[in-house]
Amino acid sequence: MMNKYRLMSPGPTPIPPEVSAAGALPIIHHRTPEFGEVFTRVNENLKRVFMTDNDIFTYAASGTGAFEGAVQNLFSPGDRVLVVNNGNFGERWVKMGRAFGLEVIELAYDWGQKADNDEVAEALATDPEIKAAICVLSETSTGTVNDIEGFARATENVLTVVDAVSGLGCCELRTDDWGVDVVVAGSQKALMTPPGLGFVSVSERAWRAHEESRMPRFYFDWTAAKKAYEKTPPQTPWTPPVSLIMQLDIALRQIMDEGFENALARHVLLGRAARAGVKGMGLRLFGPDEDMNTAVTAAWAPEGVDGKQLVRVVFEEHGIQIANGQGQMSGKIFRIGHCGYFDAYDIISTIAAIELALESLGHPVELGSGVGAAQRVFSKSGVTA
Amino acid sequence: MMNKYRLMSPGPTPIPPEVSAAGALPIIHHRTPEFGEVFTRVNENLKRVFMTDNDIFTYAASGTGAFEGAVQNLFSPGDRVLVVNNGNFGERWVKMGRAFGLEVIELAYDWGQKADNDEVAEALATDPEIKAAICVLSETSTGTVNDIEGFARATENVLTVVDAVSGLGCCELRTDDWGVDVVVAGSQKALMTPPGLGFVSVSERAWRAHEESRMPRFYFDWTAAKKAYEKTPPQTPWTPPVSLIMQLDIALRQIMDEGFENALARHVLLGRAARAGVKGMGLRLFGPDEDMNTAVTAAWAPEGVDGKQLVRVVFEEHGIQIANGQGQMSGKIFRIGHCGYFDAYDIISTIAAIELALESLGHPVELGSGVGAAQRVFSKSGVTA
Repeated sequence: MMNKYRLMSPGPTPIPPEVSAAGALPIIHHRTPEFGEVFTRVNENLKRVFMTDNDIFTYAASGTGAFEGAVQNLFSPGDRVLVVNNGNFGERWVKMGRAFGLEVIELAYDWGQKADNDEVAEALATDPEIKAAICVLSETSTGTVNDIEGFARATENVLTVVDAVSGLGCCELRTDDWGVDVVVAGSQKALMTPPGLGFVSVSERAWRAHEESRMPRFYFDWTAAKKAYEKTPPQTPWTPPVSLIMQLDIALRQIMDEGFENALARHVLLGRAARAGVKGMGLRLFGPDEDMNTAVTAAWAPEGVDGKQLVRVVFEEHGIQIANGQGQMSGKIFRIGHCGYFDAYDIISTIAAIELALESLGHPVELGSGVGAAQRVFSKSGVTA
Repeated sequence: MMNKYRLMSPGPTPIPPEVSAAGALPIIHHRTPEFGEVFTRVNENLKRVFMTDNDIFTYAASGTGAFEGAVQNLFSPGDRVLVVNNGNFGERWVKMGRAFGLEVIELAYDWGQKADNDEVAEALATDPEIKAAICVLSETSTGTVNDIEGFARATENVLTVVDAVSGLGCCELRTDDWGVDVVVAGSQKALMTPPGLGFVSVSERAWRAHEESRMPRFYFDWTAAKKAYEKTPPQTPWTPPVSLIMQLDIALRQIMDEGFENALARHVLLGRAARAGVKGMGLRLFGPDEDMNTAVTAAWAPEGVDGKQLVRVVFEEHGIQIANGQGQMSGKIFRIGHCGYFDAYDIISTIAAIELALESLGHPVELGSGVGAAQRVFSKSGVTA
């Protein structure tokens, strides 16, 4: 039977048809009033999504590239930096920091465990030479969402740097209210835009650190970006990815039309329904089972079922693309993304497909058990499903 | 009167409708056989366009980002590097090299002048500590195309690094035949794809330099890229810009359908017609008037006409986007791009619009004088226009 392709991965994520359509518009020149109008609006709406008045720069880069920019712009070789590592991305920032000659103090947790902000505060108190603390908002690899409000409080005396690539626009992140100095994000998650854009927001304190930083840099240099952004209309120092920015403009306007707080509330509900669905069919969640904003639901593959095979069957027989576990969790867990352009029926279809796939893999499951649990979440919330 | 928007800038450039349409396709996951098939074909076709068997890596980045990657991967701080500077981009690589702590030996020429490869050879002979030589293929800022075959010969004992961002696929660049170690390019010129992808090709000798290099790097690290590319199907180390790569796939297939050597020959003709058109209406070319592949035709604004105003009138009254002079040439010259998805009638329309704009600016010009000259180029070649 024909199956539609349904992208339910933690990233890239599906994009709204209007955003898709904007990808087919002719390329316009980037030094024109027409592009300037788009770019000005994009910059204003990004501030709403980042919940900040800080500068925000957009790069042709993945989130990893924008993160590298933060490392290059904030630090000098030998600087001491605390990095929370409770998953694949925390691990990546440890490696990146070391690649750039930073003295990385790693605060490691088992995958799936949340960072303990008391330990963060303690680590900083013990080592007053630490200049910055880095934490991931939403660990895509595990679904775990760290408490960034608490993290920012624990790190208020140093630079607070947050990887929000998979969380921004989905998990609460009140950049200015909480005092987060640097937030790094990407286009391909809750911002409902194809992958290829990386973002960074820079606080006053981060600018002061930038002035002292002696790390070599050019492409991601914040000073070069600021100089270009201050032109009228704002520009980028290098040729911007015109079509992706035009798509981002449509996506951000859709988020504003939905209402940003409504979008956050929708994501709470999507995560709640995904967790209820997984548990309803008798599977065990991976990581903490808390009622909060999440971008990804991760669950253990049941005894006797290979997680990779489950993901393959869900895709090949049902057309729904969920994700494998990454790194040390490969084959053990599977992941459902719900960060971005997702609604109730995306979750319901995914839970239904996982039930059917488990059945065809010989694992006992009562069809509809997970789906019903997910439905009840939406029903209670007033969303009919 | 309504004017269609015609993008005749040196970059970004217009893209074929099929490439536009591919930008509106749904986002697919990058770790799937479907994307693997696309990416494998892209990598094969890129080798044809780069005319190399070397590794080629694709990044979410502008050309400047991919160039930064070359600097990070080839060198260590303090390395001596010769950089030819005869325009805005040569100047950029001088600045970038210094930003990364290289000892840059700058071989500077007036804007519009070609690099003298005898002087390149001499500079290398005088200073045997020089490890690499960098030159721009096509200086977008001036239209000047450097002789890279001669440059590669002059630099055969050191690493030969070429910025082909605005030249690749338009100006001849036989990477392997000529022995160019590293070629950097971008998607938004002759490759007929939106901006946002940067490329680098890496020779065996460049890999050996990479092994010795101690420059900090992560996002652009070639070893990380190679490791991901060696998987089956090939992957990228970070989330790739899926939609841009799917668009590039269509564009490269169109170039292959046209025939790569035919595409190069088309660009010879486009440049010849643009130069004939400019001269035919009585204007003076900027830079050498040679019959060769060029990506951009630059010309002096006539006495009494501000170049910026000319560009503005051509755009506002005729819908055709040509470009101003950059940097020191701002207001003095204007530039017509013809690198990428351009045909005879794009050149003819542009020449006609410049004639009309000059007339409306009070500059004496015989309407049709430039157009006729351009037509004669196409007529002689067997292309009816």
